[in-house]
Amino acid sequence: MNRRVSIYDTTLRDGSQAEEITLNLDDKLLIAKKLDELGVHYIEGGWPGSNPTDRQFFKEIKGVRLVNAALAAFGSTHAAKNAAENDANLKALVESKAQVATIVGKTWDLHVKEALRIPLERNLELIRDSVEFLKPHFKEVFFDAEHFFDAFQATPDYALACLKAAHEAGADMLVLCDTNGGILPQDLAPAMTAVRAALPGAALSFHGHNDSGVAVANSIEAVRLGASQIQGTINGYGERCGNADLCSVIPILEQKMGIGCLPEGKLSMLTSASHYVAEVCNLRPFMRQPFVGRSAFAHKGGIHVSAVLRNARTYEHVQPESVGNVQRIILSDLAGRSNILAMARRYYKDLDKDDPCVEALLAEIKEREAQGYEYSAAEASFMLIFFRTMGWSKSYFDLVNFRVLDGKRGGEQPISEATVQIRVKGRIVHTAADGAGPVNALDNALRKALCDAYPHLNEMKLMDFKVRVLSGYIRDTGGTASNVRVLIESGDKTEKWTTVGLSHNIIAASWQALVDSFVYKLFKDDPQKWPQKTDL
Amino acid sequence: MNRRVSIYDTTLRDGSQAEEITLNLDDKLLIAKKLDELGVHYIEGGWPGSNPTDRQFFKEIKGVRLVNAALAAFGSTHAAKNAAENDANLKALVESKAQVATIVGKTWDLHVKEALRIPLERNLELIRDSVEFLKPHFKEVFFDAEHFFDAFQATPDYALACLKAAHEAGADMLVLCDTNGGILPQDLAPAMTAVRAALPGAALSFHGHNDSGVAVANSIEAVRLGASQIQGTINGYGERCGNADLCSVIPILEQKMGIGCLPEGKLSMLTSASHYVAEVCNLRPFMRQPFVGRSAFAHKGGIHVSAVLRNARTYEHVQPESVGNVQRIILSDLAGRSNILAMARRYYKDLDKDDPCVEALLAEIKEREAQGYEYSAAEASFMLIFFRTMGWSKSYFDLVNFRVLDGKRGGEQPISEATVQIRVKGRIVHTAADGAGPVNALDNALRKALCDAYPHLNEMKLMDFKVRVLSGYIRDTGGTASNVRVLIESGDKTEKWTTVGLSHNIIAASWQALVDSFVYKLFKDDPQKWPQKTDL
Repeated sequence: MNRRVSIYDTTLRDGSQAEEITLNLDDKLLIAKKLDELGVHYIEGGWPGSNPTDRQFFKEIKGVRLVNAALAAFGSTHAAKNAAENDANLKALVESKAQVATIVGKTWDLHVKEALRIPLERNLELIRDSVEFLKPHFKEVFFDAEHFFDAFQATPDYALACLKAAHEAGADMLVLCDTNGGILPQDLAPAMTAVRAALPGAALSFHGHNDSGVAVANSIEAVRLGASQIQGTINGYGERCGNADLCSVIPILEQKMGIGCLPEGKLSMLTSASHYVAEVCNLRPFMRQPFVGRSAFAHKGGIHVSAVLRNARTYEHVQPESVGNVQRIILSDLAGRSNILAMARRYYKDLDKDDPCVEALLAEIKEREAQGYEYSAAEASFMLIFFRTMGWSKSYFDLVNFRVLDGKRGGEQPISEATVQIRVKGRIVHTAADGAGPVNALDNALRKALCDAYPHLNEMKLMDFKVRVLSGYIRDTGGTASNVRVLIESGDKTEKWTTVGLSHNIIAASWQALVDSFVYKLFKDDPQKWPQKTDL
Repeated sequence: MNRRVSIYDTTLRDGSQAEEITLNLDDKLLIAKKLDELGVHYIEGGWPGSNPTDRQFFKEIKGVRLVNAALAAFGSTHAAKNAAENDANLKALVESKAQVATIVGKTWDLHVKEALRIPLERNLELIRDSVEFLKPHFKEVFFDAEHFFDAFQATPDYALACLKAAHEAGADMLVLCDTNGGILPQDLAPAMTAVRAALPGAALSFHGHNDSGVAVANSIEAVRLGASQIQGTINGYGERCGNADLCSVIPILEQKMGIGCLPEGKLSMLTSASHYVAEVCNLRPFMRQPFVGRSAFAHKGGIHVSAVLRNARTYEHVQPESVGNVQRIILSDLAGRSNILAMARRYYKDLDKDDPCVEALLAEIKEREAQGYEYSAAEASFMLIFFRTMGWSKSYFDLVNFRVLDGKRGGEQPISEATVQIRVKGRIVHTAADGAGPVNALDNALRKALCDAYPHLNEMKLMDFKVRVLSGYIRDTGGTASNVRVLIESGDKTEKWTTVGLSHNIIAASWQALVDSFVYKLFKDDPQKWPQKTDL
């Protein structure tokens, strides 16, 4: 790899404009550390001139030793009504003591007229004076040319004049922004060629938004056209449809275009960094996200599975491990024997494809899927069936009975109360608990019943709960008597797992999934769990 | 618009390979009708040779009058061990009686050797014989050139020979597939230029996967390079990272490249079609989805909002209404007014946009949507709120209390028993009923309590029941204590309607939706229901 491109991450500033994201100071510090560990070159920490959280962030980040990344503070060109040196916003940038200042300025005459409401010439002064004022205080000053591509299409000469003003004032990087996300890859060449002709020495960056679904494609096209920096966010978080997703841009540049981005060896932490940031932002990871999504290397179709097991290249464009992801074989009625065999061989390498255990497992899964169970999304439940078929027969507890009472009186809040009676380690335990709904109440009562015998269950918690009414059954039994499938996602410090339950009764289906979830946790932590194939 | 490109939708086949999607026959029929209404040119209904659901789909779709779309059945080239005319898979295609047959064949020598394990020459025969066999039975036969771009990079001559075999055998369309989703936009030109040179008369289509996050960009690049058809799925559903998202491809082609796709006037139903398909697939719509996502035109940043209110073009790349979406201003939400006004004017023609009723309705809906109610899929609940705001105040019954007991003893069947106490026409009625689950028991008990006063409720029945756990609440309350939204679809002889309930307690949410459903039935059959605007 000869050529290198620097990665400028704006998850903490532009990313936090996403509708569902609200980051507090601790969240921002956690994400900054993770970004530095991943090895991005620049972390845009926030807009110190706009809010106290961001000002505080720049104070507290001083106590964190960043190894790879330079810290950038964001602001805008100074207000037209005053001079640069009296501008509160620029002063806040200086006070941030970041290594890099990035200021956004107008380049589209529509905006100068409609938003700033000043003469076009005055805007050029704002750009020039702001960059010149900041230069002595920072290692680098970057100029974000807002709406540059729209500006170039409307009035190319004026757009270029804005860049020239920033460049001549000493800006170290001209960031060409597709602020509205409306540009297509084919629109980049005319604009960038003109910029390079007008300002041959200038370093160029690209900042893309995903409103047309092509932010990643635009970013790599910009690199092909000479950009030496890409701005984006982890998971593509950002206002409206988000920014360019660095989790796609980075592996494409490194793996498909031979351009260096992250420090050696860091690409393989991309998946964990992506999920970590999602966790801190309190958003579900997007399953179909390229490279890092849970489904990105998941194979479901039968013909795909048998081919991918012979040679992964047949249906995988890169090696999952290269970006820290894993290949997954999904079980479903679309697949069959080869899928199940692949799963079994992870644990029993020498298993023969005609082994009676494989037959038995296949028959069991087929019958359950015909009833409406769905194991492709409930691997933990599948694993329990699998190991039982392989000879594992331990029972951690048995149900004697459970009951849940839900009620509501007039305009009062609804109540839910559960009682659970189980046999555990030879004793009968009978508990009661309430909850914010019947499943929560059952969860609380079952946990209470088990925690004396298995105290480590307290590490585990339920994270998600999904219900699907199987409409195939509606015609037979009518509406609310249909079969119901419940998926429960649980997690502890090291792992997440999903279990399934099925019944015409939603409470009974939830109970099954709940029990599987507890049993899976007990099983995976059990030192004696591993049934040897030779025991069978 | 001179140039047109046809849209080939494969949501029902490739889309259903997505990890989280399992479509039954009813789901497939509903989606097919919606796709036809949207106006795509081709609907790939499934693979009749691979499973009974798809075979049944092609039988039942015969009873549906499709206005815009031709139906395509999918299969593969015949098995190497037999001749085309004896191939069960090809025969199943013919039996489907679809207008179009689409067959996938290998073009990459790696696959011919590793997956089919036959000589390269034999694969050419499979392609030729399969197309020739199908031709007389179909209006059109399309050839899906699997892994075409990888094949072209590996052994260009062989890849082109495969296309040539299909073309000479009479294939009406050569579909260039990026099966692994590994191709970048810059890789398309060499391959497509070579194809056009080798087969000047052939019509070309592009089928892209999103493993590199550039499926949309690849699709529009293919159109620039001469493709006359694009294959993709609604919402980009599909195996691994999904297919090219038609909800981005279509508006880009129509609005940004001046190329016609859908029938005149259909683009504005794109957002509702996207959400409808998500609903049938039981998946959450993706908020940041370009063009059709809930956040696609949502403005949060302070400077953006003030500018966008002066001139929407400043931060919007297309008009939200053009794709059936709406601008939303987060915090000071102005969205929905025009929708709500449009709805109100269906019943009250002369309603002024500043009428206090419109204000009140807007405030109520906004507050409820902020809590997590969703009215786009629950028009009956919306109508009840609407008419109440317009002055309708009739109460058909009042809740005193309800209770549901669910229980299970050891290995026995679960039981559910509900009691309902209501005030109806001045009397207290107290009933009990069991059911195949708590909602069914509540439904039975409520129906019993109401049927003396309103015997025509017996015509009505519950038809579907959907549950969604709302993710925003997870961190605060943990797993099973999250907020739950329940949608209930009901019907009588003349109409179907959907109602919504919301609570952290699934039983309370179901009760709300159930009550709305009964009230809507009573309301719509009530001769005195119509509140006159002048009464207010």
